[in-house]
Amino acid sequence: MVDKSHTELASLKTDVLEMGYLARDMLDRSLEALESRDVALAGSIEEDKKRISDQDHEIEQKCLRLIALYQPMAKDLRTIAASMKVITNLYRIGRYGKDIAIVVPDLADAPHVGNLVSIPHMGDLVGGMVTDALVAFEREDLAAIHDIVEREEAVDALRYSIFRECLTYMMEDPKNITRCTNYVMIARYLERCGDHACKIAEKVHYMVTGERIEIR
Amino acid sequence: MVDKSHTELASLKTDVLEMGYLARDMLDRSLEALESRDVALAGSIEEDKKRISDQDHEIEQKCLRLIALYQPMAKDLRTIAASMKVITNLYRIGRYGKDIAIVVPDLADAPHVGNLVSIPHMGDLVGGMVTDALVAFEREDLAAIHDIVEREEAVDALRYSIFRECLTYMMEDPKNITRCTNYVMIARYLERCGDHACKIAEKVHYMVTGERIEIR
Repeated sequence: MVDKSHTELASLKTDVLEMGYLARDMLDRSLEALESRDVALAGSIEEDKKRISDQDHEIEQKCLRLIALYQPMAKDLRTIAASMKVITNLYRIGRYGKDIAIVVPDLADAPHVGNLVSIPHMGDLVGGMVTDALVAFEREDLAAIHDIVEREEAVDALRYSIFRECLTYMMEDPKNITRCTNYVMIARYLERCGDHACKIAEKVHYMVTGERIEIR
Repeated sequence: MVDKSHTELASLKTDVLEMGYLARDMLDRSLEALESRDVALAGSIEEDKKRISDQDHEIEQKCLRLIALYQPMAKDLRTIAASMKVITNLYRIGRYGKDIAIVVPDLADAPHVGNLVSIPHMGDLVGGMVTDALVAFEREDLAAIHDIVEREEAVDALRYSIFRECLTYMMEDPKNITRCTNYVMIARYLERCGDHACKIAEKVHYMVTGERIEIR
């Protein structure tokens, strides 16, 4: 690829990162809205859905254009290929933020059961995984994601413990059932976001080294 | 693109369809295993995870190679771009099949509550959406997916009714809580598979017409 192509590649990466930080922001705000039972904040996330969907489409178009125009090879091609996949993962993370936001109004009419059963903690872990996967993508350096497998396992364990904890609240008092069923779903969404962060890490690994790995 | 490129494009489409039918099969078998509480059948789905992941990677590589080699334009380029996105949706559908299969052992020790609360019916609807999205992709004809929005709405409604029904079973008898929480999750997975079928339909629409639509 010629120099102009490298400018365009850098701009592509900036676009992916911008989309990534929007996805992370949607997730963060949804969890904040959940914790503070803030229906207005939850509603604001719906508006980002169109934006992230547009970014997904525009970046994909840019990738195809770059491939057709410059016929990149080796790492340049892997960067474009990684970008095309990573945006799909980012889109899903943003969507999970929206899914969490959607249930906030149903949960806002009463205090949370059991201090929201570890969901904010799980949210922090997962948010950190997403950010670090983006950092690795930006720097083309695997350092930030070297322990992503362990973090994914911690997230998995947390999801299971939330599930068990919710079961006890539901058994104690049937009034908790609707609320706790929603917590179980949210824990599952967060675990999925962690999974998407791992998928991004896999793509970054492939981009940097040319070697394919399967994290989970 | 020259003639050789069209042969390769046809072969790419065959690969995508093959992956699609594997994804659908993983979903179908997981639901069959769930309904008949067949732990061995559920276990067989785990083995397909590697296969579908390999297909995802190989098809992606093929797409990149075709773009770089032939610099396709217009519909040919859209077909390759659609393929790259569709395989991600298909991969997720297969993964949901695996997610359903994973809980089968936990549910196999006792009969299902409330005739499995409409889950098989929901599975049929969603499976039909996946197949028709693939048919539309194969034939490059939108006929099979003309009513996919209505079907998605029916799936959504069904998910909500399963959720409500499960809540009543959980309130009636705390022994149902673990089991019914799993049903709620499975209904959510199926709704997600329907969502992925819609995303495939969007990509097929773009591939065929060059016009972007947003189904949901």
